[in-house]
Amino acid sequence: MPHTYQYARAALTVDGVVFGLDAGELKILLIQRALEPFKGKWALPGGFVHVEETLDAAARRELAEETGLADVFLEQLYTFGAVKRDPRERVVSVAYYALVKLSDHAAKAATDAAKAEWFPVSRLPQLAFDHADIVALALTRLQGKVRYQPIGFELLPPKFTLSDLQHLYEVILGTELDKRNFRKKVLGFGLLVPLNETQMSGRHRPAQLFRFDADKYEKLKKRGFNFEL
Amino acid sequence: MPHTYQYARAALTVDGVVFGLDAGELKILLIQRALEPFKGKWALPGGFVHVEETLDAAARRELAEETGLADVFLEQLYTFGAVKRDPRERVVSVAYYALVKLSDHAAKAATDAAKAEWFPVSRLPQLAFDHADIVALALTRLQGKVRYQPIGFELLPPKFTLSDLQHLYEVILGTELDKRNFRKKVLGFGLLVPLNETQMSGRHRPAQLFRFDADKYEKLKKRGFNFEL
Repeated sequence: MPHTYQYARAALTVDGVVFGLDAGELKILLIQRALEPFKGKWALPGGFVHVEETLDAAARRELAEETGLADVFLEQLYTFGAVKRDPRERVVSVAYYALVKLSDHAAKAATDAAKAEWFPVSRLPQLAFDHADIVALALTRLQGKVRYQPIGFELLPPKFTLSDLQHLYEVILGTELDKRNFRKKVLGFGLLVPLNETQMSGRHRPAQLFRFDADKYEKLKKRGFNFEL
Repeated sequence: MPHTYQYARAALTVDGVVFGLDAGELKILLIQRALEPFKGKWALPGGFVHVEETLDAAARRELAEETGLADVFLEQLYTFGAVKRDPRERVVSVAYYALVKLSDHAAKAATDAAKAEWFPVSRLPQLAFDHADIVALALTRLQGKVRYQPIGFELLPPKFTLSDLQHLYEVILGTELDKRNFRKKVLGFGLLVPLNETQMSGRHRPAQLFRFDADKYEKLKKRGFNFEL
């Protein structure tokens, strides 16, 4: 195939910011690098894009290879192209963010990574490359996005209480929300299906469990529905 | 410098969706391709990223080279990486969108492009590559963004009437807005400075001219101000 651009080319990578909710804390999945540069440092899971795969496919493949995660909510975030972001040579990275239910997934380290571990967003270790910038942008995107798209449910188990849901929003937005207003708004969308189950928690009275009605949301969205919190 | 990825690499390009407001219509700047592939077809201005320049710099350089535009509002949109999007070989494109004041800029075709021309968003010609997808996403982004960030002012001349502003929002959002509500909301932000000037338009009574207070907006933004329309 004729090459159209004859000069030096950047290498292209994908990196993924994987968010999970664990014991009420928002966490990110990091990999301890087994190789130089930044050997021993924590970094986002990621790697080189193959010439015959899409960017999304590369992001999913790297996540699976390095952490064992599959079938997760994944969206492109931003492409990072500072000239010296990799000490080896010019590497442009297409960053993604993913949301996983920690109940479903136990992340495990795989072949090319030494170790995979969840860290609270509020207490991250020093990160390799420009990965701290990527994490910061992913967090901003998540905070913006949960307000107008019900992606928060990707982080919750299939059955949850209204307190679980409110706590999720509080953790992501980093702010307390008024309980009465939150419940009124969230129930007003008609997207939460009450289940015939309750959950006990400490000395509180049993709390109603709900599930998110994804099918209904998809239908409403096609008609121009706007989920705004 | 040691190369870290030894296999075939994608070529990396930037493409720009340049929006302008012309006689009350939202338009996009297109380039007629002088070379194969898609010779003679209309396409977004863009080109290859040099190995020693950032993505933003490449986007600005290509805009300047192909259209003469400089100092415009420019933001990264999304990176397009379908495997066969370029018939020659694997080319990944980092797409940008730009907003320009048509009053300031007369776009001109430069060396590598045959012709540059503004087309109404509602009546675009057939586009080369996957550029129609890029335009569609840019429009969605613009529609989302004007609602919570005052970027619409980038499209208006420095002095404008409230009708101009409302019309801009109506054109971008593709919907009519209630005049009274719109004015109340827009004046409520305190970001419009009334000038000692009016504008005559047809038989209407002279309309007050305003300017956007960008300095005040920057200060408010730092304190967590949210421009929401």
